[in-house]
Amino acid sequence: MPAPKLKELRRAYGFDEVAIVPGDVTINPEQTNIDLQIENTTFALPILSSAMDAVVDVKFAVLMSKLGGLAVLHLEGVQTRYDNPEEVLAEIARASKAEVTPLLQKIYSQPIKENLISQRVEAVKKAGGICAGSVTPANAKRFAPLVTEAKADLLFVQSTVTTARHTSKSVRGLIFPELIKSIKIPVVVGNCVSYTSCLELMRTGVAGILIGVGPGAACTSREVLGIGVPQITATIDCAAARDAYQKESGRYVPVITDVCKAIVAGADGVMIGSIFAQAKEAPGHGFHWGMSQPHGTLPRGTRIQVGTTGSLEQILFGPSSLTDGSQNLVGALKTAMGVCGAFNIREMHKAEMVLAPAITTEGKSWQMAQA
Amino acid sequence: MPAPKLKELRRAYGFDEVAIVPGDVTINPEQTNIDLQIENTTFALPILSSAMDAVVDVKFAVLMSKLGGLAVLHLEGVQTRYDNPEEVLAEIARASKAEVTPLLQKIYSQPIKENLISQRVEAVKKAGGICAGSVTPANAKRFAPLVTEAKADLLFVQSTVTTARHTSKSVRGLIFPELIKSIKIPVVVGNCVSYTSCLELMRTGVAGILIGVGPGAACTSREVLGIGVPQITATIDCAAARDAYQKESGRYVPVITDVCKAIVAGADGVMIGSIFAQAKEAPGHGFHWGMSQPHGTLPRGTRIQVGTTGSLEQILFGPSSLTDGSQNLVGALKTAMGVCGAFNIREMHKAEMVLAPAITTEGKSWQMAQA
Amino acid sequence: MPAPKLKELRRAYGFDEVAIVPGDVTINPEQTNIDLQIENTTFALPILSSAMDAVVDVKFAVLMSKLGGLAVLHLEGVQTRYDNPEEVLAEIARASKAEVTPLLQKIYSQPIKENLISQRVEAVKKAGGICAGSVTPANAKRFAPLVTEAKADLLFVQSTVTTARHTSKSVRGLIFPELIKSIKIPVVVGNCVSYTSCLELMRTGVAGILIGVGPGAACTSREVLGIGVPQITATIDCAAARDAYQKESGRYVPVITDVCKAIVAGADGVMIGSIFAQAKEAPGHGFHWGMSQPHGTLPRGTRIQVGTTGSLEQILFGPSSLTDGSQNLVGALKTAMGVCGAFNIREMHKAEMVLAPAITTEGKSWQMAQA
Amino acid sequence: MPAPKLKELRRAYGFDEVAIVPGDVTINPEQTNIDLQIENTTFALPILSSAMDAVVDVKFAVLMSKLGGLAVLHLEGVQTRYDNPEEVLAEIARASKAEVTPLLQKIYSQPIKENLISQRVEAVKKAGGICAGSVTPANAKRFAPLVTEAKADLLFVQSTVTTARHTSKSVRGLIFPELIKSIKIPVVVGNCVSYTSCLELMRTGVAGILIGVGPGAACTSREVLGIGVPQITATIDCAAARDAYQKESGRYVPVITDVCKAIVAGADGVMIGSIFAQAKEAPGHGFHWGMSQPHGTLPRGTRIQVGTTGSLEQILFGPSSLTDGSQNLVGALKTAMGVCGAFNIREMHKAEMVLAPAITTEGKSWQMAQA
Repeated sequence: MPAPKLKELRRAYGFDEVAIVPGDVTINPEQTNIDLQIENTTFALPILSSAMDAVVDVKFAVLMSKLGGLAVLHLEGVQTRYDNPEEVLAEIARASKAEVTPLLQKIYSQPIKENLISQRVEAVKKAGGICAGSVTPANAKRFAPLVTEAKADLLFVQSTVTTARHTSKSVRGLIFPELIKSIKIPVVVGNCVSYTSCLELMRTGVAGILIGVGPGAACTSREVLGIGVPQITATIDCAAARDAYQKESGRYVPVITDVCKAIVAGADGVMIGSIFAQAKEAPGHGFHWGMSQPHGTLPRGTRIQVGTTGSLEQILFGPSSLTDGSQNLVGALKTAMGVCGAFNIREMHKAEMVLAPAITTEGKSWQMAQA
Repeated sequence: MPAPKLKELRRAYGFDEVAIVPGDVTINPEQTNIDLQIENTTFALPILSSAMDAVVDVKFAVLMSKLGGLAVLHLEGVQTRYDNPEEVLAEIARASKAEVTPLLQKIYSQPIKENLISQRVEAVKKAGGICAGSVTPANAKRFAPLVTEAKADLLFVQSTVTTARHTSKSVRGLIFPELIKSIKIPVVVGNCVSYTSCLELMRTGVAGILIGVGPGAACTSREVLGIGVPQITATIDCAAARDAYQKESGRYVPVITDVCKAIVAGADGVMIGSIFAQAKEAPGHGFHWGMSQPHGTLPRGTRIQVGTTGSLEQILFGPSSLTDGSQNLVGALKTAMGVCGAFNIREMHKAEMVLAPAITTEGKSWQMAQA
Repeated sequence: MPAPKLKELRRAYGFDEVAIVPGDVTINPEQTNIDLQIENTTFALPILSSAMDAVVDVKFAVLMSKLGGLAVLHLEGVQTRYDNPEEVLAEIARASKAEVTPLLQKIYSQPIKENLISQRVEAVKKAGGICAGSVTPANAKRFAPLVTEAKADLLFVQSTVTTARHTSKSVRGLIFPELIKSIKIPVVVGNCVSYTSCLELMRTGVAGILIGVGPGAACTSREVLGIGVPQITATIDCAAARDAYQKESGRYVPVITDVCKAIVAGADGVMIGSIFAQAKEAPGHGFHWGMSQPHGTLPRGTRIQVGTTGSLEQILFGPSSLTDGSQNLVGALKTAMGVCGAFNIREMHKAEMVLAPAITTEGKSWQMAQA
Repeated sequence: MPAPKLKELRRAYGFDEVAIVPGDVTINPEQTNIDLQIENTTFALPILSSAMDAVVDVKFAVLMSKLGGLAVLHLEGVQTRYDNPEEVLAEIARASKAEVTPLLQKIYSQPIKENLISQRVEAVKKAGGICAGSVTPANAKRFAPLVTEAKADLLFVQSTVTTARHTSKSVRGLIFPELIKSIKIPVVVGNCVSYTSCLELMRTGVAGILIGVGPGAACTSREVLGIGVPQITATIDCAAARDAYQKESGRYVPVITDVCKAIVAGADGVMIGSIFAQAKEAPGHGFHWGMSQPHGTLPRGTRIQVGTTGSLEQILFGPSSLTDGSQNLVGALKTAMGVCGAFNIREMHKAEMVLAPAITTEGKSWQMAQA
């Protein structure tokens, strides 16, 4: 007797399973425009750097700003727990594999100093950078006023999974419409992977949505919790939510994900960690340990070594002598858009994409053997 | 000419092919309840430890009981064949790879001593533990009275595949309704992987069903026999049988499988081996050789080394400095339930799950290279 | 514009992608019958050994016969090209990897001696064995009379792909109905992978069909030619042809394939090479080089080392202390049949099979790491 | 709430995912004809060698011509930038892995000398070869007259993706109908992967289309840009475009792709790089770096080592003692055609092909372990 159908399992796709199909029209890459707009601010590049301690400090944020992108400062990490974060970062880089997780747990158990939140934000602003700071939902009500008083330009509220409806034990948890109303700067929220939860978050008035649970290079949430949706499907679904929300509200809320290919799936921007951790300006000394804060009883991030390969400018604009796509991100995106005949990001959303698991291995036996 | 369709091949899914989708609502993990009820006994944790000699002895069973779970004692293994099983277990741990299978075959060819069955059960009870003992269908009629007389709380009847309809050469084989009637304690039966066979077993009056053929880390049945159904499909089908049986009988018979992700597929509890074999209280010295008894002519289990990583308490509740999910199982389950907005296990059954083969590799090239 | 559908690509399945589902009824393995009937001869075991020089010589054929199976003697290999094949076989075993293909090309370029064909067949018969000899279609007309005169019991006609309709350059090629009529012994033909070609071969009057193009361990035809159909789909299709042919003719022509799992897909018997090459009675010294004759300009087979693990009797019936299924083939088949509630091979054809690519890896990370 | 369907993801197949099904009729390979016709020229072999500096120089082109195929000379590579390209090629072969990409960038930044274009073409013609030269779309208008004046037989215009509709910044870009009209020799264009873009290119009057984006062994475009379509799907779609175009125009424009299996998918010829780079006559000393010119800011090709395995004649016609299909390409193609009962390439287009990801691994555990 066949089983009655109890549970439908939808197929979800990851970024290594898809490929972009060239268009019937091609254009010169130099004619493409890759602006990203978050409320009233327009960024020349649709590229954000992740709020990771190993990537963004004050100097990095300022430089990223000047190059046209946006680096998000982690406001609950070493920058706000230590007066001299450089020492702590060096210690992490020196630790052996066996030592590093307990060390991270110890380092991140130090309390956050509220005065450092203000100091870091002000330092970015003083140096002429656009400043975005990231806090967790649990601390958002407490830290948001500090962030806005210090004149930050954007507030990011991030956790593994953030929804508009959270049941907590406190009498009155975080209510996004209230938070957004109380501060005057745009609030970008994440992470989110499904249509309904994205739509519900957009309806709270957020200025942008971060997409993805677990695709980060150092993140082990998918393994530890079993939770996650591969990025292409997550992006397609959230982009559909954005379009539905635009129809109902007239507002266009950009969705930001973590790999350039996702732009064809519907993303407006990409938030990148590992590749920026390779910049010589990144404070992590060629290492990073993801975005999750090392949890005291259930860690879900591991330290990985990415090495240092070049300057941030080189990573964004080249020139490059690497053939793996980790440098000249802007050139690659513009070239891809040219090949798809897309003059801007929204046109790139319409490019064709195929399921192509063979794409990375077809014909590459020598390349793989010699890597 | 196309072939007429002779044989339909349904697609079956394994636990590495699926991922859990976060919910539209999230809750604080501390507000979740993860009780497991088997007839009139309620366990605080939905976690059982497998009836493996390398995992459960009297002390381990008592400790597991006190921590809220249930450890099943293997009543046809070294504990009931040897007065001093510790020596035998140490010998297995010391054996070289080449020696170990013949050694296991020899060790398990010693006769079972009935008095040891009673002794082991009584020892657990005396120390205040809940006692569950496991026997094979072939020996169930003979050993069940000993088990109940020794005041065990539950009887497990387990073989690779157990059905309600078995044709044997003996005049009168094991009849589950008779066995269940003859003893007064709940009988949990396994293993089982399909809708009909699960439904038929439930109709015999069993108190719980164990799901799975061959997913165990040390088990080679799938390779040797070609038999098996990946765990997610097996669990979905048996959970459907449970729901159908509840409709027809009003009884809710829990189904127990072997990996936390399977709870979203419909499992009420999980029975875990390899991870508990890593506990410092496990008698296997960092090794185990699965649940199958080493067969004299057709062995279907291999010894594997899992190492010793921490205490049983740490494995269940943390704290952990491992980032692979092998410690703080309860914390991980509760966190996953929180992210899915599930207050209890039956709500977790309704969480969404996607087919996502990319889930373990997407974005993880560095992590994999440095593992 | 979407492309008009030019070419349909049907999905074909290999044996590592499927798993057998246990039945709702189970039976004691000892109650199963695994007879294979080829015309009027009934074999106790549905197991043939491949016509490979590294596996079958006269002694091996006799032993296999006595154990209930059938070993097919390669009549165009070293046994019929050399008076002392043992020397040649030892030379192949001694050759380095770089030397072996040219050496095989040289060895197999020696002419076949017709008197040796007769001698080898007669030697098997004299020792009381059932004798089956294998020839290629190109030589079938020439060698068939020698084979029958020497009193062989069966003739196998084998090439990579054999069809009932072959266009050759000679005036009058091999016509199967004529060949079958001219000799009095059953003719088993192979290889074949599709419904129509199998049906057409059956209509020529053959006594059995061998299924498969390229799954052999040493065969590189799939790589060199791109030709092949994975075994499960090939077997399902050819079994459908057998059933269709039985309806139209009343004759039941067994189909023989190369892995036990294929019995559930519809095979009546299995022809095995690599595992028998591991027998201490196999003449290949722990090596084999497939069934294809080493071709002088386009070789499609490579020598592989399989080692020597036990006696032929142990491989067939155990006892075994290997946990990989390469010993006690009969015990494994009977156990699988018991678990599926199949009393005989034709009932085993009706067992359920699922597509389960996860079957070999699910839960086996430690096992794979320690293999 | 399920997401509205925003983006359809069609499944695309690569050549390792498919297998050719033997036919119901087989023919002697010697009776097959494998001619390729490009406009009025008929080539005995449907095999072209890629316009790669590591493969084709004047001598190689002449030899390939004499053997019945066509070698395309790269007219924007080292042959036209250096008077003594041999020195440069030796330098590339000697460079370490770390040095090679910057070295290639430097070497290819030297200007092209127009006089060398003429010299190379004339040298091939003088030696009696058929001469085909390859230029990029950007330089086609400038170099085409030189190529025709030097009496080349065919002009190839190649870039990663070439379409009939390209938007450039120059006032008037390359217009294919004008180019084709202005020169008298056939123009073959590439690369192209989709139905519409192929159809549009054919309508411009081109004599042949090259199919594929990124399958080349040294090419990293798929990784760097995320762009590409696996070869089997690309070929099926472009072959459909060819057939549609033949219906509307009466002209049959051959499509050329890069692996023999693709002939069953509809290709008329194959353009091969890596295998020819292994010829002792190839100028690359056992290395190659793909077809893409090393780009100064965004390189998309890497140097790979393929080794030197035999003469070009051996690669094309054998004899071979390699069992991996890299020698005797013609023999393999003809054998495959024989097994499919195809007398010529267009009949081979009709052979059946199945999706068979298991094709390369089924039964090959030993072979893979010993590779």
